[in-house]
Order: sequence, then structure tokens, then C-alpha cells
Amino acid sequence: MFKEGDWLLIRYEDKKYLRRLDSKGSLNVKKDILKFSFLLNKPEGLRVGKFEVFKATLEDIILLGFRRKTQIIYPKDAFYIAFKLGIRKNTRVLEFGTGSGALCAVLSELAGEVHTYEVVEDFFKLAKSNFERFGLGKNVVFHLEDFLKAEIKNEFYDSAFVDVKDPIPFLDKLHRVLKNSAPVGFLLPTTNQVVDLLSNIKGLFGGIEVVEIFHRYYKTVPERFRPEDTMTAHTAYLVFCRKIYN
Amino acid sequence: MFKEGDWLLIRYEDKKYLRRLDSKGSLNVKKDILKFSFLLNKPEGLRVGKFEVFKATLEDIILLGFRRKTQIIYPKDAFYIAFKLGIRKNTRVLEFGTGSGALCAVLSELAGEVHTYEVVEDFFKLAKSNFERFGLGKNVVFHLEDFLKAEIKNEFYDSAFVDVKDPIPFLDKLHRVLKNSAPVGFLLPTTNQVVDLLSNIKGLFGGIEVVEIFHRYYKTVPERFRPEDTMTAHTAYLVFCRKIYN
Amino acid sequence: MFKEGDWLLIRYEDKKYLRRLDSKGSLNVKKDILKFSFLLNKPEGLRVGKFEVFKATLEDIILLGFRRKTQIIYPKDAFYIAFKLGIRKNTRVLEFGTGSGALCAVLSELAGEVHTYEVVEDFFKLAKSNFERFGLGKNVVFHLEDFLKAEIKNEFYDSAFVDVKDPIPFLDKLHRVLKNSAPVGFLLPTTNQVVDLLSNIKGLFGGIEVVEIFHRYYKTVPERFRPEDTMTAHTAYLVFCRKIYN
Amino acid sequence: MFKEGDWLLIRYEDKKYLRRLDSKGSLNVKKDILKFSFLLNKPEGLRVGKFEVFKATLEDIILLGFRRKTQIIYPKDAFYIAFKLGIRKNTRVLEFGTGSGALCAVLSELAGEVHTYEVVEDFFKLAKSNFERFGLGKNVVFHLEDFLKAEIKNEFYDSAFVDVKDPIPFLDKLHRVLKNSAPVGFLLPTTNQVVDLLSNIKGLFGGIEVVEIFHRYYKTVPERFRPEDTMTAHTAYLVFCRKIYN
Repeated sequence: MFKEGDWLLIRYEDKKYLRRLDSKGSLNVKKDILKFSFLLNKPEGLRVGKFEVFKATLEDIILLGFRRKTQIIYPKDAFYIAFKLGIRKNTRVLEFGTGSGALCAVLSELAGEVHTYEVVEDFFKLAKSNFERFGLGKNVVFHLEDFLKAEIKNEFYDSAFVDVKDPIPFLDKLHRVLKNSAPVGFLLPTTNQVVDLLSNIKGLFGGIEVVEIFHRYYKTVPERFRPEDTMTAHTAYLVFCRKIYN
Repeated sequence: MFKEGDWLLIRYEDKKYLRRLDSKGSLNVKKDILKFSFLLNKPEGLRVGKFEVFKATLEDIILLGFRRKTQIIYPKDAFYIAFKLGIRKNTRVLEFGTGSGALCAVLSELAGEVHTYEVVEDFFKLAKSNFERFGLGKNVVFHLEDFLKAEIKNEFYDSAFVDVKDPIPFLDKLHRVLKNSAPVGFLLPTTNQVVDLLSNIKGLFGGIEVVEIFHRYYKTVPERFRPEDTMTAHTAYLVFCRKIYN
Repeated sequence: MFKEGDWLLIRYEDKKYLRRLDSKGSLNVKKDILKFSFLLNKPEGLRVGKFEVFKATLEDIILLGFRRKTQIIYPKDAFYIAFKLGIRKNTRVLEFGTGSGALCAVLSELAGEVHTYEVVEDFFKLAKSNFERFGLGKNVVFHLEDFLKAEIKNEFYDSAFVDVKDPIPFLDKLHRVLKNSAPVGFLLPTTNQVVDLLSNIKGLFGGIEVVEIFHRYYKTVPERFRPEDTMTAHTAYLVFCRKIYN
Repeated sequence: MFKEGDWLLIRYEDKKYLRRLDSKGSLNVKKDILKFSFLLNKPEGLRVGKFEVFKATLEDIILLGFRRKTQIIYPKDAFYIAFKLGIRKNTRVLEFGTGSGALCAVLSELAGEVHTYEVVEDFFKLAKSNFERFGLGKNVVFHLEDFLKAEIKNEFYDSAFVDVKDPIPFLDKLHRVLKNSAPVGFLLPTTNQVVDLLSNIKGLFGGIEVVEIFHRYYKTVPERFRPEDTMTAHTAYLVFCRKIYN
């Protein structure tokens, strides 16, 4: 049942809205109005005129609710990353930098524990406020600290994800704090960054893969089934590898 | 540390091999040989000559180890599906048909409980043997039974995934056994099937999305960074939606 | 040398402008101004401050200069179509409907003769005015007429292109007016249309191919080489085949 | 009508064969046989049992008939290149290196005159023999010579295409022998090469575009309309630009 304070994903034709259920609130689209008081104690998954109302998923929250000052890690990439990192209930995962917290939110839903490092205070605050607003991340430890300066025991982490402009200076320490065979991912927007990483990584990490992910959406009218006109052509290159013992 | 019986992912140049650590075993590639006895009690993530040896991940096991008689659900799709279905530690998820068990294996890693239905006895046995061989799926209940005939309580499942040739006859029962607002996914190889589904689904489910996912891999030589020559162009269309209360 | 009346393609950073060289004219972008009088009798391919000025190509004219009331056939598709139709200097090619004339303009650059049919008077006028404005198509015969009613001799055309919502009613006549083995192309935005065509074409035409074409553009900054953020995901499905004698 | 010596494109189910019509010849596929004597003086575009027989197009000849020692320029890229270079009946176009002659064959079909340079004698001979075998290229001048050493007048060419591993040393001379505003294309398999070119080109050429082209083919069974399972993921990056006067 919907209740006061729930985060709602409201669809109206092709559009999506993320709203908090405030019983005094409402949503106006074109000539239609959805009064939120009507939703209270109604079953979730409700069709009201042209509106469809669901409980918001994590994907909805990240895409529509997270405030961002940087390029976000898109759910299409985040979902795949979490699996490539082998995230499970008992995994302790390292992330830096935090950015707006989008990947961190996905990791924290699945992992046992997430430690995330960020040196830019604005991002650190942004990510924390995104988490607080949506009640996320009880298992996340936020560090406003340079990963290079952080005191971390050897072989402390089960896996790691790195989203910084130049990951090269971090590779040695990253290698040290990971368990053997641990999976690592990197997000890099440009080919130059990937080339640099590939040139520097091979002594420390193996099983290297570089991949781009594309999602192509379709219009849902059955009589005229066809793809959407445009799509996201690029977010970033993803590099995955695993710690080599040495 | 590697130990007898571990499933290994061995890389040699661009090739991947899934092997069980049998201390009498070995792997020959070109003129190189890797004797498995050497691996015993060595740290995981080992480089031995041109070989790199890791503990196999679930992705490795599905892609290289699962026997199949049907088109497999690829990890690239399976990973995304699990997230779109909102699978978490306490989720009870429904799947039919089981097929070779690839998606089921991914769901079971994340969900609390998976119930999977299959009517073809050969597939049922295949999936079970895939799970047994790799020690997967303690939280999976396999049903050799037509989902339409199964006795299931109303609003029993948190989410569902459907991979059958013609999902239309199953829609009413599917709707009944799902909780309100529950996410559902369908995997359909042809546009004709998608058109049929879209034509029949709208009274029962809302928030419909249709998506294709592409993964494009790159060669990892930094001096000649470029995509692989070929890629998978199609596995299936994925349709996601959520139960509408009515 | 640039001269009065030339069609110019002007680039300024990532933007493109199509302008006619009117010696009294100018182009303002941000704080920069390009006076066209400066260009007169200067060599083509000129860099003036941040502006680059070229003679416009046919691609520039179609993309930036053609007025349209319908979905345009994009140059990426048009170029490929012309070649699949085997258009050469001595080819007599049939097209219907004319639409805004984009494909017709490409065909006419290469073919000996183009006959194009259009039943909607508004499109007929639009295409003609597009051609007149840019001085195109001396070898094009425009027909404001239903192709089905047109009097055309048997085996009159070397090749044909069809861009109408429902091509099925035209197939018999199309077959009759084409030479044996003649290549034919169809442009169809939806999968439903392709399915219909494939269901009806096989007695008359063979060697059938269905293809989608994607162009993915890159940012041209060498220090940060990466794809553009978005791309065109769909214009249309292209169907090619050849007349079967019967 | 088919006649002795014609190049045939024969289709049988999904397969394509390029054969010369030798009246003593035949083609066996599975249990079916097509005797070529049957084709003589029959209309082109013939269906004989499961066989479909057409006159071969240039695309068929390049893809199925050209012998190659290098990576070929694919028709999908070649067609687009010819148009981006603005090739018309009166164009004099420069190409180096010749390679196996695939692009040269496309250019020569459309241009007035093609001058192609190749330094490797094996490639030079290969391209010439490909052209002779299929009776192509009356308007092509083959040079077994280093483009850098060739004596060429200033502003001699209307456009040019460059397919060499490292185009940088050729840029100055290329610029000199082109007319102002002339379009130029480069084919480069790796991102490293593109980055190098972009770093060196900007003083001499403007209007730079970098693009990848993808073709995605579909199975043609109307009841199960869906893409082919695999596709070509990469042939090369195409760089287009135009000569800047300086």
C-alpha cells in the first residue's frame, strides 16, 4: 500500500516523474491532474486515468532523483559493474572517487560493506545528501580523504571500482589493499585514458577486458514497433581486470 | 589459496578455459603446459608463464561451463534483468521456463528464493545437473511442471521473469501470483513476439520498456587500441513492466 | 574562388551553418562575426578566425538546407541506397514517393535519369522548390501522380526505390516496369512494415536483404578522443532485393 | 540475358556464391545442382529450384571475388567514402595505398579518373589482377611508386583517400596536390592512429569528422523477424576533412 513519504515513479505516456508522496501534493501533466491524497493506502501499481503510479526503484531514484555535479555512472553500466565485481552479501568493496554516489548506491544494495573515498568536499557532501534524501546506504562508509593517503590494511578488500581521471598513480596501492584474484573495474570516458591504463596495468592485474555497453530502447506501440529515434552513444569505457599475485 | 576441486578460469593470450583443479590435471596450449599440481595452495590470481589463473566467477561458469540445449540467456542480459527485477536478499522470484538455468543461476546469487518452472523434462534435468556440477542454487526450487497448472497463492511473488515462446497464455495467472507493483521481465528473440506481447499486456501491466543490450569488446593492446572485429548483434529483446492493480 | 551566390558550409567549433554568399551578408556566432564580402574571390577552404568556410556539399545541402514536411532519408542511408541500386551514369531509376526530395537529389547526382512520383501535392511542390533553390536535378522528371495509375512501359527502369507507408499494393506494377535482375530498395520505419513486405515479396523479388545503418561520430579533440554522447538510433529499416523473372 | 563469361551472384538459402558463367560449369549445394548451360540466353534474375541467379554487382565482386592480402575496405565504408569525397563523373581522385583495390574499384565506377599509388609490389600486382579478372577500372592509373616521391602538380586533385599505417608524413604533400576546399578521407583501424592524425592535421585541413559505420543485418523470415546473431563490430575509423587554404 502507498503511504506518506513513499518515493513514487509516475508515468504519463512516455514521460517519467519521481515524486514523494505528500498527501497535499499533486502532479499536473497536460490537462490531467493526479492528487496524491488519492493514492494513500491504495495498492501499489495503480492506474489513475493516464497516470501509472509505482514505488520507485533504485534505477528510478538514481536517474531521476540524484543530484549530480559530475557525469553520473549510468545504471546500465552500474548494474554490469556490480556483477563483474562479483558483489555479494558478504563482499567488502572499495570505491573511489565517490562522485555523486550513483555507483555507490548500486553497490551498497548488494554488498556487505562499501568504503568510498572522495577528495572533493563538494562531491562528498553531494553524495551524502543524495543518500540521506532517499534513505540509502546503511552499509556505506564515506571517506573525505585521498585514497593514496588512507591507512588501509593489506588484502583488505574483496573488490574495487575506480572512477578518477588518472588512475595510474593509484595502481600500486590498489593492488596492495586487494585480496588475491580480486576483481577491479575502471570507468574511463576517453580512449587516451584507456590506452594509458592498459600500458601501466599489466604487471599488477590480469584477465583484462575493455567493454562498451549500449542500450537501445524501443517505442512500445505494437502497431508501429520500432526503436527510439536517438540513443546514448557513449558514457564511458569500462575496464575490468583481476589482481595478479606477485 | 587454490585447492583441489576449485573451478579455475585460465587465460592464455586471448583465450579462456574453465577447468576444475584436479592435481593430476594440466592444460596444454600451443607449446606451453600448465600443471595443476603446481597451483595447489598457491595464492589465487597467479601468473605462470603465459597463463593467468583465477577463481572462476559466475559469469565464467555460465559462459564456459553450463551445458545448453537452448539459446542461453547471456550474462550481459542476465545481469541487467536481475537489477530491473529489483532482486535483493529477501526477494522471492518466479521464473519460467528454466531452460539451461543460466538466468536462474544469476537470480539465485542475489535473491532470497527462486522458484523456477519447466515443462520439458530434458531442460529440467539439464538445469539441475548444471547447478549440481558447480554447486549452485541452494535457494532454488525446481519445478518440473507447467506454470499454468501449478498451485500458487495470490500475490506470492515479488517479481518474475518469463522466457517462453508465447507468453500470452500465461499473463493472467502471472498477474495474479505477483504482488502489486511487482516488476516482470520477458525475453523474446523476435519482433513478432514483442508485438504480440505489447498488444496483450496493457490491461495487466504498466511502465512498459523494451530494450536491446549490446556489449562491444576491445582488444587490450595499448599501442593498437581498437574494438574486436565482430560482436554479438542479437540475443533477444527484453521487455520490462510492472503489475498494475485491477 | 568563392563567388556571389555560392552555397557555403561554415563551421564554427562544433557547429555547422549553410549560408548563401550574399556580399552584404554576414554570420554572427558568439562574439565573432564573419562578413561575407571578405570571402569574395578568395580561395575556397578558408579559415577566418574561428570560422572555416567551404563550398557546401550535397550532404550539407540536404541536411541543413532542404525543407521537409516528412521524415527525411538521411545521407547515411541515401549514399548506401544509391550504391545498392547500382546507380551509374546511364541508369534510369524510378522513385516513389518523392517526399522532400532528399534521396532523389542523391540519385540524380549519379544516375542518367530519375523519374519520381508523388501523390501529395504539398510534397511535390516542396521537393521541386528544394531542387530549384539549390540548382539540383536537371535529369529529374517530377510526376504529381499515383505510380499505380502512371502509364509506364514494361521493363522500362534499371532500378527503383520505394518510400511509401504500405508498399504491398505497388509490388506487381513495380515488378512489371523493371528490367530483369533490377535492384530495388524499400525504406520502412517499423518492423511491422518489414514483416508485411517480407510476407508478400518473395514470389516477385529475390536476393532479399534487410539492414540497419548506424553512424557513430567522435569528438575530434586528440587529447580526449571519445564518441559523441548521443547518436541517431533509428531512421528506418532498408530492404533490398532484385527482380525475379517469372 | 545471361551469356557466356558473365559474373553471376548465385543465392541458395542464406548463402552467396560468385561464379563465372562457363556453360560447362555447375554449382552443387547440398543435394541440388545448378547447371550453368541452363542459364545461357535466359533472362537475368532467374529462380531455378532453390537457386536464385543474378548478374553480380560491384559489391558482390568486391566481397566475394577480390583476392586480398590486406584488410579490405568494406563496401559499407567504401560507398560512404565515395560520397563524402564528392566523387562525380568529372572528378580526378587520388588514392594511396592501393591495397587490394577494393576502394579503388568503387571510386572508379563513379569518378572521371582515379590515380592510385602503392609501394608494395605484391599489392600493386594483386590490385591489377583483381581489376583485370573482373574487367574493372578503365579510368584507373596504377602507380607502383611512393606517393612522397611522385611528381605531381600543385592543386591537381579534386579529392583524395589515404589508407596507410601512418599518414602523418604524407600530409604536407597531400595538401599541396589538392585543390582548395577538396575533401579528403583517411581510413585508420586504431584509436591511436586517429589521435595521431588529429594532433597533426589541424593546420592543413578543417571541417574534421570522425565516424564509425555499422551495418546490422536481419534474417528475412517474416514470421520470426529478428537481427542476425553476429555483426561486424569494427573495420576502421573514418576521418574526413577538407583542405584549408594557407
